[in-house]
Amino acid sequence: MGKKVLIVGGVAGGATALARLRRLDESADIILFERGEYVSFANCGLPYYIGGEIEERDQLLVSTPESLKAKFNADIRTSNEVLKINKEEKIVEVKNHKTGEIYKESYDYLILSTGSSPLKPPIPGIDSPNIFSLWTIPDTDKIKGYIDSNKPKTAIVVGGGFIGLEMAENLHRQGLEVSIVEMLDQVMAPIDFEMAQIVHEHLKSKGVKLHLKDGVSSFSYDNGKTTVTLQSGEKVVGDMVILSIGVRPNGELAKEAGLEINQRGGVVVDEFLRTSDEFIYAIGDVIEVIDYITKNKTMVPLAGPANKQGRIAANNILADYDETYRGTQGTSIAKVFDLTVANTGINEKNLNKLGKEYKKDYQIALIHVNSHAGYYPGGLPITLKLIFDNEGKVLGSQIVGYDGVDKRIDVIATAIRFNATVKDLMELELAYAPPYSSAKDPVNMIGFTADNLLRGLTEQVLWRELETLDKTTHVLLDIREDVERELGFIEGSIHIPLNQLRNRLNELDKSKTYITYCAVGLRGYIADRILKDNGFKSMNLAGGFNTYKTMYI
Amino acid sequence: MGKKVLIVGGVAGGATALARLRRLDESADIILFERGEYVSFANCGLPYYIGGEIEERDQLLVSTPESLKAKFNADIRTSNEVLKINKEEKIVEVKNHKTGEIYKESYDYLILSTGSSPLKPPIPGIDSPNIFSLWTIPDTDKIKGYIDSNKPKTAIVVGGGFIGLEMAENLHRQGLEVSIVEMLDQVMAPIDFEMAQIVHEHLKSKGVKLHLKDGVSSFSYDNGKTTVTLQSGEKVVGDMVILSIGVRPNGELAKEAGLEINQRGGVVVDEFLRTSDEFIYAIGDVIEVIDYITKNKTMVPLAGPANKQGRIAANNILADYDETYRGTQGTSIAKVFDLTVANTGINEKNLNKLGKEYKKDYQIALIHVNSHAGYYPGGLPITLKLIFDNEGKVLGSQIVGYDGVDKRIDVIATAIRFNATVKDLMELELAYAPPYSSAKDPVNMIGFTADNLLRGLTEQVLWRELETLDKTTHVLLDIREDVERELGFIEGSIHIPLNQLRNRLNELDKSKTYITYCAVGLRGYIADRILKDNGFKSMNLAGGFNTYKTMYI
Ligand SMILES: Cc1cc2nc3c(=O)[nH]c(=O)nc-3n(C[C@H](O)[C@H](O)[C@H](O)COP(=O)(O)OP(=O)(O)OC[C@H]3O[C@@H](n4cnc5c(N)ncnc54)[C@H](O)[C@@H]3O)c2cc1C
Ligand SMILES: Cc1cc2nc3c(=O)[nH]c(=O)nc-3n(C[C@H](O)[C@H](O)[C@H](O)COP(=O)(O)OP(=O)(O)OC[C@H]3O[C@@H](n4cnc5c(N)ncnc54)[C@H](O)[C@@H]3O)c2cc1C
Ligand SMILES: CC(C)(COP(=O)(O)OP(=O)(O)OC[C@H]1O[C@@H](n2cnc3c(N)ncnc32)[C@H](O)[C@@H]1OP(=O)(O)O)[C@@H](O)C(=O)NCCC(=O)NCCS
Ligand SMILES: CC(C)(COP(=O)(O)OP(=O)(O)OC[C@H]1O[C@@H](n2cnc3c(N)ncnc32)[C@H](O)[C@@H]1OP(=O)(O)O)[C@@H](O)C(=O)NCCC(=O)NCCS
Repeated sequence: MGKKVLIVGGVAGGATALARLRRLDESADIILFERGEYVSFANCGLPYYIGGEIEERDQLLVSTPESLKAKFNADIRTSNEVLKINKEEKIVEVKNHKTGEIYKESYDYLILSTGSSPLKPPIPGIDSPNIFSLWTIPDTDKIKGYIDSNKPKTAIVVGGGFIGLEMAENLHRQGLEVSIVEMLDQVMAPIDFEMAQIVHEHLKSKGVKLHLKDGVSSFSYDNGKTTVTLQSGEKVVGDMVILSIGVRPNGELAKEAGLEINQRGGVVVDEFLRTSDEFIYAIGDVIEVIDYITKNKTMVPLAGPANKQGRIAANNILADYDETYRGTQGTSIAKVFDLTVANTGINEKNLNKLGKEYKKDYQIALIHVNSHAGYYPGGLPITLKLIFDNEGKVLGSQIVGYDGVDKRIDVIATAIRFNATVKDLMELELAYAPPYSSAKDPVNMIGFTADNLLRGLTEQVLWRELETLDKTTHVLLDIREDVERELGFIEGSIHIPLNQLRNRLNELDKSKTYITYCAVGLRGYIADRILKDNGFKSMNLAGGFNTYKTMYI
Repeated sequence: MGKKVLIVGGVAGGATALARLRRLDESADIILFERGEYVSFANCGLPYYIGGEIEERDQLLVSTPESLKAKFNADIRTSNEVLKINKEEKIVEVKNHKTGEIYKESYDYLILSTGSSPLKPPIPGIDSPNIFSLWTIPDTDKIKGYIDSNKPKTAIVVGGGFIGLEMAENLHRQGLEVSIVEMLDQVMAPIDFEMAQIVHEHLKSKGVKLHLKDGVSSFSYDNGKTTVTLQSGEKVVGDMVILSIGVRPNGELAKEAGLEINQRGGVVVDEFLRTSDEFIYAIGDVIEVIDYITKNKTMVPLAGPANKQGRIAANNILADYDETYRGTQGTSIAKVFDLTVANTGINEKNLNKLGKEYKKDYQIALIHVNSHAGYYPGGLPITLKLIFDNEGKVLGSQIVGYDGVDKRIDVIATAIRFNATVKDLMELELAYAPPYSSAKDPVNMIGFTADNLLRGLTEQVLWRELETLDKTTHVLLDIREDVERELGFIEGSIHIPLNQLRNRLNELDKSKTYITYCAVGLRGYIADRILKDNGFKSMNLAGGFNTYKTMYI
């Protein structure tokens, strides 16, 4: 018999570790403990089953205890909760919830993949019968059951993170009228405000009601309805409430065992994913990881990292590969109705929290482009934001759009992994045929745009800086066509279409600074170049009227 | 007045260079010569206009001479052909085809973006009135006009490259019955045979007739029909013929000017895209480039590189950026009916031509995966092939499938740009939510598979090696489920379902080598691991029954 490895937690990280352990060593003695009834299920699919997109409940069960056992010859113990780790004796204490029995199991190595749990703060009324969290299969059954039997008409989603938004979409798909309550001024914390505004606009267009910048102060249940009283005093009433306001790591087991944990209760591991005890590894939502960009400690509860970490821990335990986990970028993506919202690396909000300042420490580029060649049908708008330091190193990106968003975020995520600069993005040789992209892919394009900024070939004004400009010295110059202007323009702007600009420079005043703008920023940039090269002071409104407009929805 | 820059050729490379030149310098004197009537058109869109996917002819004209002039204040001279370059005097000789006039124009810098032209070898009958090439707007008008007025029912596409296949699809879309004639044993030269077989199967399923491994020996035209006589003697008759058998660079101008050109007539440039004359730059299809992988010289006629090179040449001429072009990977993609076919880097065929041998010099991994999480509806199969050297450095990849192919090729193309190894692919943190991918993205997955091969954790047999194995010492072991086997299996294989394997090892013979196989290679790998760890000799059939089957369509 080979090494005896115990795994605590049987879903993303745990089940993956189990599979890899077995593939590395037929002789290992592997026992997996899962306190719930289910192992290896599709956490990420749960909202879609509730919405009906995933039709069969069975599809959520990627493996069953039986199939895992048959394939990987491991001892799968569901409804078995590990209560305690005795690391000195290398023993765990387990409670079998089916029999009530408490027993011990020894190990050579232990892997903790205990995951995280949804936060449920002590808000008055939070235990009302129609308030749900979505984390497990039983949670899902409860929500689905509630909808099927109570036919709720309205739902309130508390928390505008990706699970909240997925739930909003899926409840809407089930015919419910949905409101979202979010304490921040935006949904989708991983992206910055101007990008989130695109999401807000889309949610509103779908009839979802947004209550931003407003937390819950209490819930009160009455006859099938819950009234959510917000901190502002506003009341929102719904037939059901979904709580998705974040997670906390299930680190108690580790903590009680005396393993090193961080302030948030996350398990501290080294680059080999070993905890402070050399025979105990930890992976997934429960661990603290290195932020790949800042190299700070952080926690990133996502399935991709959990799966990869499971494989690495297994390698290090059974195969001496000395494989390292080099950090998490936080690449994430969500479908929000027809939109895709994605990000990788760090955003401006977090840079600012770290004391980094726009222009002094980092710059941004923001463009709107088509998902593929404009002349081929079906292209749809994408907005890309790139954040880079003054040496051009890419720090992060956020992309929102209707098609091809996942591709571009993956390309940039890949580039970031190799510490790419904006020059590298310019050079990337991506696949081009009309149905798929443009000869200058959006990723090349944001590279070009960023490089122009770094070189000072163009200067930009951000939407958020517009209001701070001195109106006596700054003049907004709309360079769009007449028909575009007719549909709306920025108050106070003058208008000279780009194609007339060179011939009408005499109408301009060299003592002023012109803020050029077009629909998306491209022609505004050309106008900026024309003005600069003719001795005028000028700057281009980043993202053009398109981004400006979104700020005032 | 700034520098005077002349551009020869007004489409992909030329028009892009022009735009960038102007953005760099308002004072430059820029003249663009285009011998055709059109500039800045969507070459890559032409097949789709013929097929009707692109509805309006105007959509093909990305810019007109007038719009280019208005936006970029450049002198756009269509129907003006540059006949000669006098590099000593820095003068070109130009013929205005509208007036017949021949005149001279001096320059400070000259950019050649003369592109390439379709090959038209002296095959008997090649000038028949219903034989067409597709390269320009007039070509397109001719083909479209012919279809509209002659209502052809059958078409023969000679040449199975991407343009040939795009034409096959678009003619089929117009209701024609299409045959493809190709001299090689496969269509789509950039991918290897086993990958092309997936395309062959798909083409056949659409009713396209394939004549592979057979060149054209003659054409003969009779009353609206052309008979194509193949080298095998076979005759194929069609109402029209599309010739797309490759291109040659339009390098005559450069050659006659005494600029250095290569054997194929391509213009030799340095890393700054400067020809052998320091005042003449060349870009696009007409130049020789460095193969990013092998560092050999090559020619890659694609729009992405042409566009990028146009920008670099402009930068180096007007902005002293000393920007370099670091080579072309040959990333390309094509839609072939419902399939997407893509590649980046080098393929096996080309490695073999360079004298590199499988296993000695390079290895391959081949997997079939779902485009996104299996439990979320709409996932479709993708086949990925990865080629890497024995140190794990990624040399190339080919991907064929129905969805998400463009994303994965772009991710691998990006990784290759950074000299990625298979370990890097394992680590990539790509965006995962069920509608977009799996927690282990296909790119991670092929990284895992490749790493297992490099580590010797598993061994594989390729489909093409199967026949060479000694049947007395090698036993094929089908480890699929009963229901899968009922639908077909490899002759001579024995059958033990994976889940029974551990209990039935006693039925196996340690003196034999077992070739395990499943549907796609994944379970075959698990079986291989079980056998190896129990002291058996074993190997996994790469790509499983799926790839095997495709070889015998
Ligand atoms: C609704 C939803 C949607 C999501 N969507 C996405 C997405 O689109 N993309 C993405 O990347 N991520 C998504 N996630 C997050 C992702 O599922 C998690 O990051 C991932 O599952 C973490 O893996 P893990 O192994 O750390 O924890 P889990 O997969 O949560 O597994 C932990 C398991 O440990 C068990 N356990 C805990 N303590 C004990 C104990 N003492 N004894 C025995 N068992 C114990 C728990 O019961 C649990 O089953 C989603 C999550 C949810 C809930
Ligand atoms: C049907 C078709 C589909 C394609 N699809 C794709 C695709 O999906 N993806 C992809 O990456 N690539 C594709 N390509 C290839 C791509 O269009 C070319 O690689 C690209 O256009 C090359 O740019 P270039 O500037 O070098 O040459 P071109 O764009 O061909 O421009 C060269 C121009 O120079 C002019 N010229 C030549 N000599 C002279 C002279 N002496 N004086 C004046 N003018 C002159 C020519 O008339 C021509 O207009 C496709 C090409 C075709 C024809
Ligand atoms: C189902 C589960 C147990 C599978 O784990 P797994 O066996 O590691 O994963 P897969 O079935 O995808 O197989 C991957 C393995 O097959 C190998 N493989 C894949 N295709 C292959 C092919 N064609 N040929 C050879 N090997 C192949 C990979 O190399 C990898 O093996 P390795 O890790 O030993 O290198 C686990 O991922 C799980 O429980 N998932 C559901 C829970 C979850 O992840 N939730 C969060 C997301 S919703
Ligand atoms: C149409 C054509 C003249 C355009 O050339 P172009 O102006 O360089 O290209 P685009 O219109 O895409 O604009 C790109 C520029 O806008 C900038 N840009 C794009 N979006 C921007 C934004 N939101 N804000 C600021 N700048 C932006 C880019 O940085 C780039 O400028 P740069 O090169 O100076 O850095 C040329 O590409 C062409 O003729 N194409 C058709 C022919 C062809 O390519 N055929 C083959 C493929 S079918």
